[in-house]
Amino acid sequence: MDEPLLMHINNNVFLRDQTLFIVDRRYLPAQIVELVCNDYEDVAQAIEKMAVQGAGDIAVTAAYGLYLAAVHIENHLQCNTEETRQLLLTASNRLIATRPTGFHLKALLAKMMAGINWEEARCSGQLLAGINQTISKQQLCSELTGKWGNTILEDGDCILTHCFPGAGLLYMLKAAKEQKKQIQVISTETRPYLQGARLTAWSVSELGIPVTLITDNMAAYCMSQGSVTKVFTAADRIALDGTIANKVGTFQLAIAAAYHHIPFYVLGYGGPDKRCATGKEIPIEFRNPEEVLSFNGIKTTGEKVKGFYPAFDLTPPELVTAIITDRGIIAPDEVNTYRSLPVKYFC
Amino acid sequence: MDEPLLMHINNNVFLRDQTLFIVDRRYLPAQIVELVCNDYEDVAQAIEKMAVQGAGDIAVTAAYGLYLAAVHIENHLQCNTEETRQLLLTASNRLIATRPTGFHLKALLAKMMAGINWEEARCSGQLLAGINQTISKQQLCSELTGKWGNTILEDGDCILTHCFPGAGLLYMLKAAKEQKKQIQVISTETRPYLQGARLTAWSVSELGIPVTLITDNMAAYCMSQGSVTKVFTAADRIALDGTIANKVGTFQLAIAAAYHHIPFYVLGYGGPDKRCATGKEIPIEFRNPEEVLSFNGIKTTGEKVKGFYPAFDLTPPELVTAIITDRGIIAPDEVNTYRSLPVKYFC
Repeated sequence: MDEPLLMHINNNVFLRDQTLFIVDRRYLPAQIVELVCNDYEDVAQAIEKMAVQGAGDIAVTAAYGLYLAAVHIENHLQCNTEETRQLLLTASNRLIATRPTGFHLKALLAKMMAGINWEEARCSGQLLAGINQTISKQQLCSELTGKWGNTILEDGDCILTHCFPGAGLLYMLKAAKEQKKQIQVISTETRPYLQGARLTAWSVSELGIPVTLITDNMAAYCMSQGSVTKVFTAADRIALDGTIANKVGTFQLAIAAAYHHIPFYVLGYGGPDKRCATGKEIPIEFRNPEEVLSFNGIKTTGEKVKGFYPAFDLTPPELVTAIITDRGIIAPDEVNTYRSLPVKYFC
Repeated sequence: MDEPLLMHINNNVFLRDQTLFIVDRRYLPAQIVELVCNDYEDVAQAIEKMAVQGAGDIAVTAAYGLYLAAVHIENHLQCNTEETRQLLLTASNRLIATRPTGFHLKALLAKMMAGINWEEARCSGQLLAGINQTISKQQLCSELTGKWGNTILEDGDCILTHCFPGAGLLYMLKAAKEQKKQIQVISTETRPYLQGARLTAWSVSELGIPVTLITDNMAAYCMSQGSVTKVFTAADRIALDGTIANKVGTFQLAIAAAYHHIPFYVLGYGGPDKRCATGKEIPIEFRNPEEVLSFNGIKTTGEKVKGFYPAFDLTPPELVTAIITDRGIIAPDEVNTYRSLPVKYFC
């Protein structure tokens, strides 16, 4: 079983000679296009354009942007510590401003800025060490989340997913396959960016697991036919009250799942945002409405029609069966207990 | 206020010198492409390819196919009455087989076949007269349905629609506009064929009414924000128990509307299918799964991914607030009373 490209961020976001390369997800799976980022502004624009996606992967990519800024300062500018700090803060703020809904981006960059030991001459090395540590931690988190997810998968399950729920989903399916569970996946295409079609369905098929693509409006029909036994989505941010912010359409699926009494699980990876008490505090990103009015640059409607593009929505905890984290499976109204749970490693 | 192209079938499906022309809806609104149909097989294929859509318009287009078959027999073959009847029956069966879910197609062709007076030398004239009568009747039905719909529209309403609900929606909005009601429309794009983007949003904008396009997965988010006051869809077939068969995604919207306590109305035009007792008897059409795996011929996913394309779904009566017909507004569980209602004309 080959590892799908998107199962590890090192496969698709990586440094080569102090330049950052991003396998542009907008062209997958048809083409492997490497986007070249020479400085933090390139990285910020790549994130804005959704060349990379997923709250954790966005955060790591942005951290690479901060690293590129540090390298540039060290190699090309004569700055004292305070000037360096100011320039890095400018870069960090630019990168944080790219996507507001996921909390990992802001949290990681704040942590990296706070963690710099300014008494050392060059901070780029520290930043790179921090990035590598974060990647290892996130990868382990995905693997543990996937393994916890697998504990609730049953032989014969057909799971419905939305958008690209990240490596956790792939680890979950891989673990199920290794235990000879027969699992099928239905993936919504996830308009307008089609992450479900381009990333999820493709990645799942690369694991050798049967996967069926549907358009976003077919999910309730599939549920009504008994074709869906469990729903799994990810979360870009989880509030302490158990509200889930995730790719727009998640809420609609959760309503349809509740109507059909189908369990709705959220791959919650590293748990809730401890600074976010309720769903109301989660900012929803509104993207360019033009993106809804066209497909691959082909306009789909009349000139006088407006578009509207909320990129995320909020799913209230009462629609969520459980949140699956690297530390275990938690009821949504108890997700604030996440940090008190021990990390359990699977043998 | 110009009449939108799709407000009257004579604008987009018409005879010219015994050839049928169909303004191919798959290219609207960007291009006006006239599909030329020389015989009933061309018409059958045009219906299958969805060059024309909507249960009523499909039925009329198919009836034109039967007319073309009759003209061909009369002009080119030496047939007696029984041979003619057999050939027309073959054509009728071919045309009926194109789309199973809507009942108008089968009902209209059966009625036309049964209505032929075989004692007259040529039946094509009778068929054409029948088609013109059907068009007039359907148009009046759309206008009355729209006017009944308008009686429940309130100033300030923002209505959500799905797929292209037909001329009834346009008549409803036109009537509201004439009464100076401020109405806004949100149209789902309706993947995979994008009838909402290409037909509905465009037609509504041509009426000079503000319309916003969203992808199919954004409807519940819009509802949660208080942006939707009423939902209106059409129906390809209504069973006597009030079950609604309509474009896939309708069911999902009805569930989301019920969750948000938003009224869900069905433009039911000429009422239920009197031969169909329950929703279980409505055949759901499954189209080519390849159509879900691509957009405008561009593949969106991996080679090993399968597609699934149910073209319609069933919405149970408990999710429907009311069915709006040409004879008035009926509770879904009383839709079997439709035929006992008087036709009321609006002054």
